[in-house]
Amino acid sequence: MIRALEQANQAAERGESPIGAVIVDRATGEVLAEDGNRVEELKDPTAHAEMLVIRRAAAAKGSPRLIGCDLYVTLEPCPMCAGGISHARIEKLVYGAYDPKGGGVDHGARVFDRPTCNHKPDVISGVAEEECAALLKSFFQRKR
Amino acid sequence: MIRALEQANQAAERGESPIGAVIVDRATGEVLAEDGNRVEELKDPTAHAEMLVIRRAAAAKGSPRLIGCDLYVTLEPCPMCAGGISHARIEKLVYGAYDPKGGGVDHGARVFDRPTCNHKPDVISGVAEEECAALLKSFFQRKR
Repeated sequence: MIRALEQANQAAERGESPIGAVIVDRATGEVLAEDGNRVEELKDPTAHAEMLVIRRAAAAKGSPRLIGCDLYVTLEPCPMCAGGISHARIEKLVYGAYDPKGGGVDHGARVFDRPTCNHKPDVISGVAEEECAALLKSFFQRKR
Repeated sequence: MIRALEQANQAAERGESPIGAVIVDRATGEVLAEDGNRVEELKDPTAHAEMLVIRRAAAAKGSPRLIGCDLYVTLEPCPMCAGGISHARIEKLVYGAYDPKGGGVDHGARVFDRPTCNHKPDVISGVAEEECAALLKSFFQRKR
């Protein structure tokens, strides 16, 4: 999660929402991908940190299914990213700050809780919550 | 929707799930992007037809927000794609076949119906439903 926070900090420095994500291969402990939000830089509404690391880790593994991989992210994933996490067969999702407005895991669409969701990762929430939330709060205060 | 069906047919020929999507700029009628599912080819779990055309259309417009654009897709979008459609500010979503198992618009997570969803497109469903559904049905029958 420290590496995800570093990525979130770098995203903030680029003027992006300060959210960072890391994917780790559980068997080897290897970091397969780490990145922060790049929506504005890439002019890509899907370029959330989670989607970028999923795409890169899948390319690294040579498979669209990231069996045995865990994803760490500083903010509760939105419905888009939760859907991507499910499609990628991520084994464990660890996230930092809760997102009552935009989240799609423990709020709103609750993507993994639907009976039709065909892969639900283990979810651990609120890890380093204060640090993750403080980063977002100070970023959006500066923007106002 | 005819062009989306052509893309779905091409996806089937590549061995991908036969789903196609097209994004049209409403003001000019110009097709900004059209593609089919490429999950297996790109080894990318996020490479659904909708996500590919959103990314390409946003790159073409030079903006992560596709204001005034409509998306046509042969199958009800999943929660990931519904989330991407919302982030992209797609104005109107037109889809063909209903997807009670994987859909996230009129089934399952119902992403646009959540009070926290910050952009909900107009949705027209069931357009060319029979043709879209027949393509999926014959593809999955052949695979078995």
